[in-house]
Amino acid sequence: MTSDEITIHRGLTGVYFDRSETTFIDGKQGVLEYRGYNINDLAEHSTFEETGYLLIHGKLPTQAELDEFDAELKAARELPERIFDVIDMVKDSHPMDALRTAVSALASFDEDRNDNSAEATIRKGNRLTSQVPAIVMAHHNIRQGKDPIKPSSTLNHAGNFLYMLNGDEPSADAAELMDKDFVLHADHGSNASAFTARVVAGTAADIHGAVTAGIAALSGPSHGGAAENVMQMAKEIGKPENAADYVKNLLSNRERVMGFGHRVYKAEDPRAGHLRAGVKKLSEEMGQPEWYQILEAVVEAMQPYARRGIHVNVDFFAGVIYYLNGVPQDLFVPIFAVGRIPGWTIQVVEQFRHNILIRPLLQYTGGRELEYVPIAERE
Amino acid sequence: MTSDEITIHRGLTGVYFDRSETTFIDGKQGVLEYRGYNINDLAEHSTFEETGYLLIHGKLPTQAELDEFDAELKAARELPERIFDVIDMVKDSHPMDALRTAVSALASFDEDRNDNSAEATIRKGNRLTSQVPAIVMAHHNIRQGKDPIKPSSTLNHAGNFLYMLNGDEPSADAAELMDKDFVLHADHGSNASAFTARVVAGTAADIHGAVTAGIAALSGPSHGGAAENVMQMAKEIGKPENAADYVKNLLSNRERVMGFGHRVYKAEDPRAGHLRAGVKKLSEEMGQPEWYQILEAVVEAMQPYARRGIHVNVDFFAGVIYYLNGVPQDLFVPIFAVGRIPGWTIQVVEQFRHNILIRPLLQYTGGRELEYVPIAERE
Repeated sequence: MTSDEITIHRGLTGVYFDRSETTFIDGKQGVLEYRGYNINDLAEHSTFEETGYLLIHGKLPTQAELDEFDAELKAARELPERIFDVIDMVKDSHPMDALRTAVSALASFDEDRNDNSAEATIRKGNRLTSQVPAIVMAHHNIRQGKDPIKPSSTLNHAGNFLYMLNGDEPSADAAELMDKDFVLHADHGSNASAFTARVVAGTAADIHGAVTAGIAALSGPSHGGAAENVMQMAKEIGKPENAADYVKNLLSNRERVMGFGHRVYKAEDPRAGHLRAGVKKLSEEMGQPEWYQILEAVVEAMQPYARRGIHVNVDFFAGVIYYLNGVPQDLFVPIFAVGRIPGWTIQVVEQFRHNILIRPLLQYTGGRELEYVPIAERE
Repeated sequence: MTSDEITIHRGLTGVYFDRSETTFIDGKQGVLEYRGYNINDLAEHSTFEETGYLLIHGKLPTQAELDEFDAELKAARELPERIFDVIDMVKDSHPMDALRTAVSALASFDEDRNDNSAEATIRKGNRLTSQVPAIVMAHHNIRQGKDPIKPSSTLNHAGNFLYMLNGDEPSADAAELMDKDFVLHADHGSNASAFTARVVAGTAADIHGAVTAGIAALSGPSHGGAAENVMQMAKEIGKPENAADYVKNLLSNRERVMGFGHRVYKAEDPRAGHLRAGVKKLSEEMGQPEWYQILEAVVEAMQPYARRGIHVNVDFFAGVIYYLNGVPQDLFVPIFAVGRIPGWTIQVVEQFRHNILIRPLLQYTGGRELEYVPIAERE
């Protein structure tokens, strides 16, 4: 093949690298299904625990199955003691770097290490589902010079997550909205972090390696950073009446408006609407309706671009939820990771089931057949 | 597009995802060039330090440039004190897991953290080139209850690596062969670990995240594990006259002969021959010529398969070199990482230069539009 005939698929856009039975996405129609169940049904009726079970096992659980899964998750909330020491060593890291380091270290302490069977991988993935939020909040407390909050053994996953922030039980509404946020983030096809996890699993490395690498990918601002940037933007806008000028100014400088547009969705991200109503309710309840109003004013200002397929995405409303729950901005991306563990887990299991090394090509465009000149003769 | 029209590129085999000016590979002819310089010239005339400079800067250095680069590498040999504590925490890990954790932790201590410019990324990458071997050997000593060996400030990269194993200066021949091994491993296009590093860099994460993820990918037995498996095989064969039956037996059980075949090379891996002569020399010098003889007997037994494109690869001779140098088998994959840092570094820099999120697609093949049944009604 001459180099003229080579097609470069930059970003691998539009390239299918495998089959999956996990998540269906129709970007044109704005449809998202986990295991065949519409995200709208799951956001309205399900919980993170039930959705996690669904993703992992491919079916909705009976009450007995859900109880068992829930007990498995709760049993894994306490971290191995030495992980707190590792977190302490890197306490000055960005929370995503601390999380990446601690998850990598967890591999050493896992009873199923060296076992890449589907059963062991699922057990390890389910433990990570509980360990990742514990690490995020332990690091957050340790970096403030505080002791980590001992996890609750009774609250649900979302409630316990907010509880571990500072030991205060969240309101039912706050916990419910956090739960919905985790449901909406639980999987999303072969986005950059899940794809990274699959490439690592493709070498027959284990789930701790795959999830560590997924966290590394998620830490990049082009992948996980949007919720944080939207909150920053909302703060800069300050009040709803400034939104139109702010957006106009960004666009005239050819800058992106954060929380809009998506590589896959050309219609509205079906996850966004579920958080929208929650943000409205929570911001009003907390006496800070301006945050919702600012976001809506930005959406209004962006209306002319909707025709070109630029719609709000899931990150647009998520940041304000975290903010209203008192979560500091640099934990917004780690929250994304907390929700995503079931998705990474099942994608690693899928990759193992029918494994292949993922190794694409680069077209070489540099010089060829250069003469090796001895060092004394170089200029 | 209906699902019938979707082409699945499993393993992304044959798919080009970008352009690169780093490494040229012609798998059919068995040609490998770094920056246009043939690997045969580099293996015979260059050093790891010079090859590292070449990969990073795109040209062979003058003596002054090489001296400066060498000084930069030497200056980075001492690890930040807290990294030894992190290594101690995970001392019971597999060396690759310990390396992954320590490299992830190094992000916190790097003076250029949060700077993804090409200059800062190269500085960080060059530091990692010196830090990765220091971590591998520190972990190896710490897990044996010993203190890490303080790095030499005078030995070259390869000599210092062997020195840090147990504090003994290696023979000139051993150091030279190790140096050649590092030259041969310094880059190799978009293999699974470099590709992982690029996917992570594609999200605008930093080089510590990208290299951490690359190490995770390299830890998988399908990527970095071959040298270890070849040594294991050589031990099982025991003496040259057993090789033919051993190979026949493996093949009749449809098992792979380790160190043969390569995703990219259908001719002989151009790196293998350079280590072959070195293994012969070193094994004779050390009074253990049987290792070389066993390997040659395996090559002989595999001759009939060469016609089908199954040739020895770089890993085939590498393991015996490490073994003869007294390196334990579970450090063979970490050695691969030690050599590969310049390649990962320049590929991350290339990815940043013209960055794009790498996000391919999965074809969904599961159920669709399932009805969400309330939990009490499920069976």
